[in-house]
Amino acid sequence: MTRPIIGRVVPERWRTTGATVPGQRTVGEPGTARIAVDLLGGDQAPAVVVDGALRACRADPFLQLTLVGPADAADAILAAQKPGVRRRITTTNTPADTVGAAVLAVAEGRADALVSAGDTRATVLSAARELGRWPGVRRPALTAVLPTAAGRVILLDVGSSVDPDEETLAWHARLGAAYASVVHHVPTPRVGLLTIGTEPGKGDRLRRGLPARLFDLPLPAGGRYAGLVEGSDVVLGRAADVVVTDGFTGNVLLKGLETAYALTGTPAGRADPPPRAALLLGVSGTVVVCHGAATGPDIAAGIALAADLHRRASVAAIADLLSAQRGIA
Amino acid sequence: MTRPIIGRVVPERWRTTGATVPGQRTVGEPGTARIAVDLLGGDQAPAVVVDGALRACRADPFLQLTLVGPADAADAILAAQKPGVRRRITTTNTPADTVGAAVLAVAEGRADALVSAGDTRATVLSAARELGRWPGVRRPALTAVLPTAAGRVILLDVGSSVDPDEETLAWHARLGAAYASVVHHVPTPRVGLLTIGTEPGKGDRLRRGLPARLFDLPLPAGGRYAGLVEGSDVVLGRAADVVVTDGFTGNVLLKGLETAYALTGTPAGRADPPPRAALLLGVSGTVVVCHGAATGPDIAAGIALAADLHRRASVAAIADLLSAQRGIA
Repeated sequence: MTRPIIGRVVPERWRTTGATVPGQRTVGEPGTARIAVDLLGGDQAPAVVVDGALRACRADPFLQLTLVGPADAADAILAAQKPGVRRRITTTNTPADTVGAAVLAVAEGRADALVSAGDTRATVLSAARELGRWPGVRRPALTAVLPTAAGRVILLDVGSSVDPDEETLAWHARLGAAYASVVHHVPTPRVGLLTIGTEPGKGDRLRRGLPARLFDLPLPAGGRYAGLVEGSDVVLGRAADVVVTDGFTGNVLLKGLETAYALTGTPAGRADPPPRAALLLGVSGTVVVCHGAATGPDIAAGIALAADLHRRASVAAIADLLSAQRGIA
Repeated sequence: MTRPIIGRVVPERWRTTGATVPGQRTVGEPGTARIAVDLLGGDQAPAVVVDGALRACRADPFLQLTLVGPADAADAILAAQKPGVRRRITTTNTPADTVGAAVLAVAEGRADALVSAGDTRATVLSAARELGRWPGVRRPALTAVLPTAAGRVILLDVGSSVDPDEETLAWHARLGAAYASVVHHVPTPRVGLLTIGTEPGKGDRLRRGLPARLFDLPLPAGGRYAGLVEGSDVVLGRAADVVVTDGFTGNVLLKGLETAYALTGTPAGRADPPPRAALLLGVSGTVVVCHGAATGPDIAAGIALAADLHRRASVAAIADLLSAQRGIA
């Protein structure tokens, strides 16, 4: 079982869980990651999912993938692969609710993490039900990373909380600060609230009342509220390390900017862009969501992200940080 | 008086109104445009406003500008200019509510159009009060144009309607279709609704109920509802000519994409990008809004847009098109 549970201390930075490749593991190696992949998730499934799985396996020899879906959708392609890759990809023959079955594999400890490019709402609801939400979290937040002129920015939520209340956005601020600290080693993360003008009183109903509340909010990892930010700040990246918004606005902005960067290049220049995949924060498990329009490389990047987060026990560390901070607050 | 009034037919494509430059006008020339510019609007006002005014005047010899604001903010700079430019820029010595005074200049026929980079809400409220809203329009829409990989897309609203209802978004669809036809000569404009997934039932509360209504909505200029679009479609530009959204989401996306394009280049390649300025649609006058963070070139582009829209009598033509279409519907 690798489900992170609030309050449990994660002592090591690199942990190995689940099955290992016999005779290959040495101390300090990342260890095997067992990822359940939703074979039917995404507009171009199952073809791009199989493509992504193969790409991910070729890039990472310690990856074991379970493609959750109808076997006939993948077996013919897999049979044509070299044994080294073939041995590390299995199929389940799940006819329906493939994301639910993938979530269950994580909940029951048969997989370390899951990746889906399917319907976000179904993934979030299934994950909240089977893996459990962290205490206080009403709505888990999809957390994405975008390149900026100054490095990178963490944007949440990008599709889970489409009609959030103030409490949900305040939780996004906590989750984002913890994520920035644990995953990106940002010291004292600055958390900005996305709106449409930086003078007080700007924005819609939800945003107008929120800043006063965020100023008083204790944030984990020494994080602090950095004030109102605008769409331009998500590109420039100077005003905040973490940008908090509702899932509707966040999703529109993310898809706009990612598509623009794919066509024109990123503001970070030649640096490798972050994966076009988001971590679902607020549930006790590692759940990575790709866009419905994900390509094979996008799916592979999502799988690599899930494996990396699992190996670093990031989700448990974020939960621990929030749990400790709640104890203080 | 050049206020477009619903129902009045605008017979000529090029109209000359207001003062002309004696001896210089010939038939077919665009004619003088008298633009009132809010001297105190914008984060860097009045410096960038004066800079923008000078740039606009140098580029267009038939422009007459009134800088609405305290005279001492501009007079020293203007006194240093060559007489040719100096003669075409006047100041008003308005101490406060400069946007209100600029709107009044248009309402009373002393100016043909106004440009402001000041507070959007103040501009919209003042314009609605002094110039009047078109019949049926609850909330005027700020209408921007963005470059896309396929050409350009019209995005509205980008900051006026921050908590709109369905009726307001339906009006944005009508206004956008008419604008696309009149200003950009798009035949039978395709109008998309911005949301976060193209399957039915996706999106927030406001978006979930709206598509059925849009399918039945008669649109001007033979426009038709083209379905749900996503943030990526605003960059690719294939799915729709006009993208309708609320002013909060539209403003965030516009500022994000414009800033990205300024850093990385536009998806349209080397083509001149559209001005970073928006037309306020739904009031009886030509009102152009620039970002609070507008630069001198942005203000100049906003002034040029206002002059062009006035010379083509675009706002009156849009109002006429909507009026005629309402007669049919």
